[in-house]
Amino acid sequence: MENQPQYSLTRPLRCIVKLGGAAITCKNELEKINEENLKAVSIHLRQAMMSGDVVGMDWSRKPGKSDICVNVDEISDQPLSDSSNFIVVHGAGSFGHFQASKSGVHKGGLNQSLVRAGFVATRISVTSLNLEIVRALAQEGIPSTGISPFSSGWTTRQRNVASADIATVATAIDSGFIPVLHGDAVLDHSLGCTILSGDVIIRHLADSLRPDYVVFLTDVFGVYDRPPSEPDAILLREIAVDEDGSWSVIDPAPEDLTKQVEITVAAHDTTGGMVTKISEAAAIAKLGIDVYIVKAATEHSLKALKGEVKSNISDDWLGTAIRFKRTT
Amino acid sequence: MENQPQYSLTRPLRCIVKLGGAAITCKNELEKINEENLKAVSIHLRQAMMSGDVVGMDWSRKPGKSDICVNVDEISDQPLSDSSNFIVVHGAGSFGHFQASKSGVHKGGLNQSLVRAGFVATRISVTSLNLEIVRALAQEGIPSTGISPFSSGWTTRQRNVASADIATVATAIDSGFIPVLHGDAVLDHSLGCTILSGDVIIRHLADSLRPDYVVFLTDVFGVYDRPPSEPDAILLREIAVDEDGSWSVIDPAPEDLTKQVEITVAAHDTTGGMVTKISEAAAIAKLGIDVYIVKAATEHSLKALKGEVKSNISDDWLGTAIRFKRTT
Repeated sequence: MENQPQYSLTRPLRCIVKLGGAAITCKNELEKINEENLKAVSIHLRQAMMSGDVVGMDWSRKPGKSDICVNVDEISDQPLSDSSNFIVVHGAGSFGHFQASKSGVHKGGLNQSLVRAGFVATRISVTSLNLEIVRALAQEGIPSTGISPFSSGWTTRQRNVASADIATVATAIDSGFIPVLHGDAVLDHSLGCTILSGDVIIRHLADSLRPDYVVFLTDVFGVYDRPPSEPDAILLREIAVDEDGSWSVIDPAPEDLTKQVEITVAAHDTTGGMVTKISEAAAIAKLGIDVYIVKAATEHSLKALKGEVKSNISDDWLGTAIRFKRTT
Repeated sequence: MENQPQYSLTRPLRCIVKLGGAAITCKNELEKINEENLKAVSIHLRQAMMSGDVVGMDWSRKPGKSDICVNVDEISDQPLSDSSNFIVVHGAGSFGHFQASKSGVHKGGLNQSLVRAGFVATRISVTSLNLEIVRALAQEGIPSTGISPFSSGWTTRQRNVASADIATVATAIDSGFIPVLHGDAVLDHSLGCTILSGDVIIRHLADSLRPDYVVFLTDVFGVYDRPPSEPDAILLREIAVDEDGSWSVIDPAPEDLTKQVEITVAAHDTTGGMVTKISEAAAIAKLGIDVYIVKAATEHSLKALKGEVKSNISDDWLGTAIRFKRTT
């Protein structure tokens, strides 16, 4: 990947945001969006990236109505609102996982009836989620535009990104849009097909487009030393990443941690859960890009999205910062 | 375009099908799919392109249900059904046109608030239609996969195709999938943005991938000598295209036509209506590829989709065949 051309944007990329599947969908209900969280996250994203008046951009017919109400004159009169450069990538949550795990799409084998059907079914599920997220952002006035990785030439080889049309993402940004990508079923040059997770997409985008910082919005306050449901779980506030990619907790001080950090993998998560998340986050931090893992729809995540914790992490901020340990 | 690389598929492309917006949506109702026609067209497409048992590939949660029923064992036991190589491209009909025409997306000018909002709104509308068409095809067991032109690097310059990721379409076909593209809002290198019509997409795909034939499914029996709503309208059964791209009616014989062929453009059609359709069809026929314009969901369109009218047009077949006039 080091040899890939880096794309230069007219204005630098400020942030890549991951909308974690657990934060924007209802975990225990198949194909159900967490509307309340999605709305709150959309408002936060607007506050973090845009200035000026809100222009609604979802002009769809509402259920039960026969026409669409859009005040064209009012919109025409408004100056173009300025948005800083963001990319949104979302996970699948309760969309897609059922279809992918039932069929084994992540294991490949497109010459099997079940895998081919599961590939189609997975893409239908994740693209329907993508559409709803684009819609929610557009309702808040964010000029969002869906870019589905399969359609956009993302392929893998042994599950590592083999090709990706970064130029389309870069051109969309330069034209004033906020690209919205997602974890997707893609073709794999050795396995036939697999699942490309949103986290892997983010690492690849971060490598190519070098954002100022990356924010992972999830359903817990950050990374803990053990499953956060356990009563004594301690939030890891800062993790330092070494040049070799290894990482260590620096806040709280290691001596304050009673036991070694445990990592859990949710059984339904076909793309690897926390292990993938931390190792992808560490890989991004290794590029010198700060990574924040925060709870969606909270004041903490809003601060992270605004970049306010970059220079100064206040004591009352809850989240995990993962940063490169500069050896100067 | 002549200099563009031609992509060679493992097996040749049999057919590109246009699902006309007028055929699959309700013309006079905003954002409403013509469910009956879409179902009939999906069945026809399956009959034309596939052999073997039907495996449902839309495993979405149905409204009101809490779980998804998929018989994984039954699907596993089925041999992979064989499908010949098709590409589906659909128009927008009552999706997208409202958003595009209200905002003037086709005229460009992304630095205007209204155009930028309209671009986002148009893409939401047309991608929601794309999702429903992919879903309808998948329900019939067609391994359909949506490829949105904007996401797939399609851009224009002065409304002519400037770039397009044909490789992704070709790879999807070689992997056994049926790509489903659509008319879309895209970036234009000179105008900022515009609308890329499904018809223009088809011509570009036909040029690059050389299908055996192209079928346009519409809401009338073919091309008429005047608006088909007029009582004396005569169906043009065969049109011959010259090497210079000009076209002439050869059946019925010109002396049987009482007046010169009129062309109508629907007022709501931001991409040009019949004029665009015939000129795009003529451009395809000029490549030596037969084009059939037929009424969707009829026995005539099924025959055209199966390629049965290629060698022999029977007297009872209703449709318009547009073919290259070979001067040998």
